[in-house]
Amino acid sequence: MDAREYLQHDATALAELVREGEVTPAELLERAIAQIETHNPRINAVVCRMFDTARAAVAQGLPDGPFRGVPFLLKDLVADHAGVPTTAGSRFFARFVPESDSELVRRYKAAGLVIVGKTNTPEMGLMGVTEPELHGPTRNPYHVDHTPGGSSGGSAAAVAARLVPAAHGGDGGGSIRIPAAACGLVGLKPTRGRVPMGPDACERWSGYVAQHVITRSVRDSAGLLDATAGPEIGSAYHAPPIERPFAEEVGRDPGRLRIAFTTEALLLGELHPECREAVERTASTLSELGHDVEPARPRFDAEAMAEAYLSTVAANVCAELMHAEHRLGRRPQADELELATWVMREIGRTLGAGRLVELQQLQAETAWAMARFHQRYDLLLTATFARPPARVGELLPGTLERVGLRVLRRLPLRPLLRQAFSAARKQLAAYPNTQIFNITGQPAISVPTHLSADGLPVGVQLVARFGDEATLLRVASQLETELGWTERRPSFLES
Amino acid sequence: MDAREYLQHDATALAELVREGEVTPAELLERAIAQIETHNPRINAVVCRMFDTARAAVAQGLPDGPFRGVPFLLKDLVADHAGVPTTAGSRFFARFVPESDSELVRRYKAAGLVIVGKTNTPEMGLMGVTEPELHGPTRNPYHVDHTPGGSSGGSAAAVAARLVPAAHGGDGGGSIRIPAAACGLVGLKPTRGRVPMGPDACERWSGYVAQHVITRSVRDSAGLLDATAGPEIGSAYHAPPIERPFAEEVGRDPGRLRIAFTTEALLLGELHPECREAVERTASTLSELGHDVEPARPRFDAEAMAEAYLSTVAANVCAELMHAEHRLGRRPQADELELATWVMREIGRTLGAGRLVELQQLQAETAWAMARFHQRYDLLLTATFARPPARVGELLPGTLERVGLRVLRRLPLRPLLRQAFSAARKQLAAYPNTQIFNITGQPAISVPTHLSADGLPVGVQLVARFGDEATLLRVASQLETELGWTERRPSFLES
Repeated sequence: MDAREYLQHDATALAELVREGEVTPAELLERAIAQIETHNPRINAVVCRMFDTARAAVAQGLPDGPFRGVPFLLKDLVADHAGVPTTAGSRFFARFVPESDSELVRRYKAAGLVIVGKTNTPEMGLMGVTEPELHGPTRNPYHVDHTPGGSSGGSAAAVAARLVPAAHGGDGGGSIRIPAAACGLVGLKPTRGRVPMGPDACERWSGYVAQHVITRSVRDSAGLLDATAGPEIGSAYHAPPIERPFAEEVGRDPGRLRIAFTTEALLLGELHPECREAVERTASTLSELGHDVEPARPRFDAEAMAEAYLSTVAANVCAELMHAEHRLGRRPQADELELATWVMREIGRTLGAGRLVELQQLQAETAWAMARFHQRYDLLLTATFARPPARVGELLPGTLERVGLRVLRRLPLRPLLRQAFSAARKQLAAYPNTQIFNITGQPAISVPTHLSADGLPVGVQLVARFGDEATLLRVASQLETELGWTERRPSFLES
Repeated sequence: MDAREYLQHDATALAELVREGEVTPAELLERAIAQIETHNPRINAVVCRMFDTARAAVAQGLPDGPFRGVPFLLKDLVADHAGVPTTAGSRFFARFVPESDSELVRRYKAAGLVIVGKTNTPEMGLMGVTEPELHGPTRNPYHVDHTPGGSSGGSAAAVAARLVPAAHGGDGGGSIRIPAAACGLVGLKPTRGRVPMGPDACERWSGYVAQHVITRSVRDSAGLLDATAGPEIGSAYHAPPIERPFAEEVGRDPGRLRIAFTTEALLLGELHPECREAVERTASTLSELGHDVEPARPRFDAEAMAEAYLSTVAANVCAELMHAEHRLGRRPQADELELATWVMREIGRTLGAGRLVELQQLQAETAWAMARFHQRYDLLLTATFARPPARVGELLPGTLERVGLRVLRRLPLRPLLRQAFSAARKQLAAYPNTQIFNITGQPAISVPTHLSADGLPVGVQLVARFGDEATLLRVASQLETELGWTERRPSFLES
């Protein structure tokens, strides 16, 4: 299969070609490897090549799953692959080699996917850009001076550049939806508990993180969810049951839905005009499709939720580092953690446990407010992010902030928290619309409805009731049919 | 209906008599009120009488639910009833009057239950005995010098004394199972997420607490679970789906099960010979019933789990008190909190959030270890508690410990934690077998298989896989049929 044909197909189509004998898994794998060799230097999306492992898996015979023979990439965070380092974008974790596969990776393999490598991530997934000191920045295939977003920016850039048709991601604050939007792709964050987090864990970031994929087509996100969803033996979270396979929701008539839309930023700041326009135009499209669309937004204590989010992530960073210290048998050296990560750990160490639990109780109140909002509306439409993708480096802490953070190493919690908030503010101002649904656990999808004036992708986010991926997939597939984004690709692929 | 007849029937039977017109809800209510007036002074189980509210509800016409007309009591903790104080056994909360019913209370009312009053609880549910300074101790109907256990000791004593056939309880560390065992009753802690905790909350004690009932018969626990189980709109936890109504599991053949039993204490210490005997005799009975019964127990880091349990409860006590301060607009005065509660709050305030999250991650590993154990065994049989019910006062912190705790008000965390552990040790040594299943969220039931040599009830605990109340109910009902505990009652009721 030549490059031109390879980049036309989504994962579902490639799997179909394999099933029909039009192409072999070995041919697809070599094509994916060639694409990585050719295009990865431009974007730095793939940071670990697993070509030999992949060739061995294909030679050994792949499981007869629904995606048999389709090349796939893993984000280099959380999803462990036996024998391959899970660096988490961190010098401290760089030599950590897991002994066994995560349950999700087992399910990817059982689905027949061929794992070709691992993709870049900011350290411990903490940023909305993908610029770790360990591997250097990943760049947006639509414009290499810009970020592909984060934290699953390596996976999004890889799929946008057609290295593979779909790649794994994890979303603890927007980390699937943001890079999907920045790279013109589909990014579904499933309901909390839908996709396994184990073994030996039921949740990450106290429930914020949902793992899934970044794809070009809605049907790939649905089909891959069918292949991976469902509790594992140690699950304490169980997502609500579903009515039918997710793949069958794609193209299914959603009926006439009540859809709220907002052009406000949910946590802080305001939208760039191009993001506002993306929302308004999508609202019009949904209205033309026959839905009842009106401006409305859920209300909650945004300041408390911002504090809850930052505090919870900080406590989890601290806990993960303590856990890793036990596992690796040593503490991180000063030069092994990025400054922002170090500050998060200090916040987590000094913040009171009682305050953390109080913030979690406030989060539950927000989840209830959201549930009441959804008694009136089936879906909420927002911008995925507040501004088109920033330039590489633009959203990292600036020099002054870095000096400030360094000084703060010796100060007590309150000013530390305040300063960290101020450093985080730049990120939150760019990405104010995604974290709240990690807090509530609702499913949310980013769909690539628009391109900015200078050709950068801009997405919109649809949010459904807890457990209701079905409605998201139906409406996303309506929009996909209407707007036809699956053929869009970066210009360098046309040459 | 006279007292002699009233005390023969469980809730299911009373509801049946109402349905058949043999007795009216008003007659049943007056009988329950008379029982409370006659017997409560002996045991101090009911601490808030709601006779007028109950009479008004009956006069107004009860919903046509499955338990229409059956008198019922609420534990005075978590389950809010509009217009009636939820004191939580605390002077600080004593004047807190909720404006609306909890979702669970709404479901009790919709089932047709008539709420006659509220039952005693230790302050904030923190003890395995029911001896709050606010209301004074509740006493065991089988021997008033002894405790009915806790924290749902008021409800258990009320049901054992036949004031009502069933009463509400909450279990964050054994608080349904322990008093059920101490009072010769059935106490089922359902799976995490099975019974609602809202509105505005999905969990208590970071997921430890499950609410349900204390009953005489297994069928009452099953039927009342049918009447109250299921997610509410804001639920983030959803228990796994069930195959059929719980009531239909009662009497259903469980088949030949693999049952592990242990006479060890799971967290610390060892069993009293009478508790050991209760387990061994039940194991023999289960074997005679045709199950494969063998000695085995799950392995986990008991010390870490004890610390995780204490730390999580402390952080939640701290958070609840901070939340209450906002709601009530003032801080607790020195004499408004019991000393043990004050110490728990201080631990929660000073413990690091990162450490709490690390302990939660260790809990997830324990949940996985337990799930792997259940790949080999359908059920685990243990003693519910390590020793027959203690004397009233015996398990409270002693004078020396109280002095120590007072001094510790001025010390930093580490010694505070150590001292609190030492004070908690007396409780944990009496109740070492229940908390671990609050950590994992598995369903567990205490059934009253035995009486000690001096006539005090002793129970055994059956534990099933996450989500599998069905197997618990089937086997508990087998034991009930075999051992016939439902007719057992305290001797003063014979006079």
